[in-house]
Amino acid sequence: MKTEKKVLLVDMDHVIADLTSQYIKYYKEATGIEMRRNDLLGKPEDEAFPASKLIRSFLRTPGMFRNAAVIKDSQCILQELNELFDLYIVSAAMKFPQSLIEKYEWLREHFPFIKWTQIIFCGSKKNISGDYMIDDHLKNLDNFNGVKLLFTATHNTNVNSKKYTRVNGWHDVKQLLIEQNEWKIIDRLC
Amino acid sequence: MKTEKKVLLVDMDHVIADLTSQYIKYYKEATGIEMRRNDLLGKPEDEAFPASKLIRSFLRTPGMFRNAAVIKDSQCILQELNELFDLYIVSAAMKFPQSLIEKYEWLREHFPFIKWTQIIFCGSKKNISGDYMIDDHLKNLDNFNGVKLLFTATHNTNVNSKKYTRVNGWHDVKQLLIEQNEWKIIDRLC
Repeated sequence: MKTEKKVLLVDMDHVIADLTSQYIKYYKEATGIEMRRNDLLGKPEDEAFPASKLIRSFLRTPGMFRNAAVIKDSQCILQELNELFDLYIVSAAMKFPQSLIEKYEWLREHFPFIKWTQIIFCGSKKNISGDYMIDDHLKNLDNFNGVKLLFTATHNTNVNSKKYTRVNGWHDVKQLLIEQNEWKIIDRLC
Repeated sequence: MKTEKKVLLVDMDHVIADLTSQYIKYYKEATGIEMRRNDLLGKPEDEAFPASKLIRSFLRTPGMFRNAAVIKDSQCILQELNELFDLYIVSAAMKFPQSLIEKYEWLREHFPFIKWTQIIFCGSKKNISGDYMIDDHLKNLDNFNGVKLLFTATHNTNVNSKKYTRVNGWHDVKQLLIEQNEWKIIDRLC
């Protein structure tokens, strides 16, 4: 009997889309000040940057989401995981409605193997069910009943709780999911 | 102890947004032919209307979702249910990405009491969990583990299965949800 694939929920911002670099870039354009990633560790962006109101305004600026860089290794490893899991991209996009079409188009461009049936844009993730969730925000992982993978982002480096399994980048994700599911390491793509 | 509110998932098209009237209007504008609701009973729209390709094109036409009329009684009854339930609007909008912002703006205009945290736009509904789902499509209800309320739409009038509890309009929904939860009938708003 063919066993059903496990459901893997993958966040966008800070997990596959490099929002931190966007913050740094937009902040430099607005103020001339170049922040380094090390300056941002362990703090939410609107505390890490000196001008919290300005920082929040970036999230409503056209292009913020559409032009984000792709997080290293996410494309090739997600392409592999897409064959092994019932995969969904789940993004809490609803607070910034202009981001809806930007995020959709960004996914089409950078993750063309993700079908429209695999995309969920929501406000809260608490009614999205699955077996694994990869997210950088505790509030999303805390409401989830499956395995909680905390994807390292500048704002969460201070979190040290056994409730979450920390993953430092996509090779960690691959290693961990493959181990947990007792698969052999696949290295066709990356 | 305060009991947690039950989760109620509510579809948009044909449940709170009158897509059938939009199909009839756009079809008349394109062909001059005025279809009646009775002509459409028991068939999906692209079979019920003589020109299936044309009908499908309406779903990609700007304004199709933004300018839809509101289904009778949905506003006032949802406003009541929003106090009794943990309510989410769940729409399979992802196939038609131009509909994302249209649906968001439509909700803001006609259902301002629904917060952005209560909106979910997806491709498939199969990973959205809850206690009650109100939907006009069997494919959505079939994947749902809670109570399945089949909201009558022209395309589903031929369905006669005990798997679903049919509701003919919003007063049916109100009556049924209030009965099932042993509440008193509320008639403040409608």
